[in-house]
Amino acid sequence: MRILIVGLGVIGGSYAMALKAAGYEDVYGIDNNLETLKKAKELEIIKEGYVDGSEIVEKYDLIILSIYPMLIKSFIEENKRLLRAGTIITDATGIKKPFIEDILKILPKEVDFIFGHPMAGREKRGIDYASKEVFKGANYLITVTDRNIESNIKVLEKIIYEMGFRKIKRIDPFFHDKMIGFTSQLPHAIAVALINSDEEGRDTGSFIGDSYRDLTRIANINEELWSELFIGNKDNLIESIDKFLIEMNNIKSALIKNDDNELKKYL
Amino acid sequence: MRILIVGLGVIGGSYAMALKAAGYEDVYGIDNNLETLKKAKELEIIKEGYVDGSEIVEKYDLIILSIYPMLIKSFIEENKRLLRAGTIITDATGIKKPFIEDILKILPKEVDFIFGHPMAGREKRGIDYASKEVFKGANYLITVTDRNIESNIKVLEKIIYEMGFRKIKRIDPFFHDKMIGFTSQLPHAIAVALINSDEEGRDTGSFIGDSYRDLTRIANINEELWSELFIGNKDNLIESIDKFLIEMNNIKSALIKNDDNELKKYL
Repeated sequence: MRILIVGLGVIGGSYAMALKAAGYEDVYGIDNNLETLKKAKELEIIKEGYVDGSEIVEKYDLIILSIYPMLIKSFIEENKRLLRAGTIITDATGIKKPFIEDILKILPKEVDFIFGHPMAGREKRGIDYASKEVFKGANYLITVTDRNIESNIKVLEKIIYEMGFRKIKRIDPFFHDKMIGFTSQLPHAIAVALINSDEEGRDTGSFIGDSYRDLTRIANINEELWSELFIGNKDNLIESIDKFLIEMNNIKSALIKNDDNELKKYL
Repeated sequence: MRILIVGLGVIGGSYAMALKAAGYEDVYGIDNNLETLKKAKELEIIKEGYVDGSEIVEKYDLIILSIYPMLIKSFIEENKRLLRAGTIITDATGIKKPFIEDILKILPKEVDFIFGHPMAGREKRGIDYASKEVFKGANYLITVTDRNIESNIKVLEKIIYEMGFRKIKRIDPFFHDKMIGFTSQLPHAIAVALINSDEEGRDTGSFIGDSYRDLTRIANINEELWSELFIGNKDNLIESIDKFLIEMNNIKSALIKNDDNELKKYL
C-alpha cells in the first residue's frame, strides 16, 4: 500500500511514525519545510519527501491531508493530478460540516474523500513533537458522506486501528460539529480564559498544583488554526459556552447565598 | 524523630509513605477506620495505629493533621494532652485565614502550629490511592503566623523537602487564600461546571480527546470537603470566577462578531 502524507507536523509526523510501527513501508511525505523533510527521512518514517505535489507522478492508495484546513482547498485545486479514482483521501480537520461542503464542491467526482478526525494531538507544533504513541487509546471520528464507498471506509478503519486508535465512531457532520463544540473547542476556550484571567506579577507558578496544570496544559494553542476552527463552528461553540456559563453561575450564586446544600448538589 | 499522622487518607497515607521512603521509622497513625489502620500497618508505613488519641501517652516531635478542616477543631479540643510544648503541629488544609483564626483561639499557648498546604493530591479518597510519589515536584505553602518559631519552621521545611516537594513558599494567610481561590478552587469549579453542562445520552465518551480529559480529571471531587473550602473562601473565589467569566465572555463576543483578529488576540 502506497501512502502519501501531506503535512509532516505533529499530526502528520505522528501518522508517519505510527504507520511505520504498524509495518507500512511505502510511506511518502509532502511538506514545504525542507528541514522537516530532512528529519522525517532521517527518522526513516518516509521513503521520500517532496516540497509540493508537482514532482509526483505515481499513484497512491491513500493520501492523508494533515495540513491546516484553509490550505486543503488550495492543495486540492493545485494537485488534481494526485486525486485519482481508486485513491482514498482523508484528513484530520477539527470541524466538518462547513469544511465538507467547501471541499465537495471542488473535489473530482471519482475521488473518495473520507473525512476523518483523530481525537488526539499535542499542544505542540512540528515534527519534533510527533510520536507513534500519540494515538494509542484515542478516539477517531469519521463523518460519512453520501459519496463514500463502504469498502474504502473499511480499508481506512483497518489502518486507523493499526495505528493505535482505540475506537472509531461514524457520525454525520452536523452531529460531529455539535459534539466537538463541547468536547474539544469549549475546553480550549476555557483553558485560554483561565490563563487570561490571571493577574501579572504574583508568582502564580508557586501556587499551582495538578488542578491548574491540568486545566491549562492545552492553553498553548495555535491561534491561527484554532480561531478558524472556532469561527467555523461558532453557533455550536457559543451554545456550549452558554450552557457552561449557566453552570458556573449556578456555583457562583450558591456561594453568594452561602448555601452549602445547593453547592454540594452542583459539586 | 517521633511523628504522628492524624488521618490516613490519600494525603495522610501519602505522607506516611513518603516519610518511610525518606527514612523516618518512628511514624504512628490515628484513623477512625480500623481497615485503614490495618492496611497502613501491613504496608509498614506506621509502627502502630490508634482509632483516636485517648490511648496515646508518649510525646511526639511532629503531629501532622491530615483530616477534614471541620474535624481539626474538635480534634484539638479533645486531644490537648498530645499538644505539648516542643511538639510541632502542622496541617494540610486548603484554606487558611478563617481556619487559622478559629484554631488559634483554642490552641494552647505553648504549641507551635505551623499551618501548611501541600499543593498536590489525588481526586481519589482513601489510603488505597496514597502513594509516595504524590508530592514529587509539587509546591508546598506555609502560612507563617506571629506565633511560629523559626527553628521549628526550618525543621518542618527539611522534612517537606525530604518527602519530595520541590518548592516551599512562605506567605501570609490572606494572600494564600486569594491565590488558592484562583489556582485551586476556580479550576475545580470549572471542571465541575463543564461536566454539569453536558447533555445526557449522547455518548460523549466517544468524542473526547485529551483536552476534555485534562479539564475534567479533577471534577470527581469530595463535595463535603470542597463545599466547605469554597464557602470558607467565597469572596476570593467569587472574585476569581468573575475575572474568568469576563474572559469567557470576551471570547464569546469575538465569536458572535465573527472577529477573527480579536479572537486570535485572546487565544
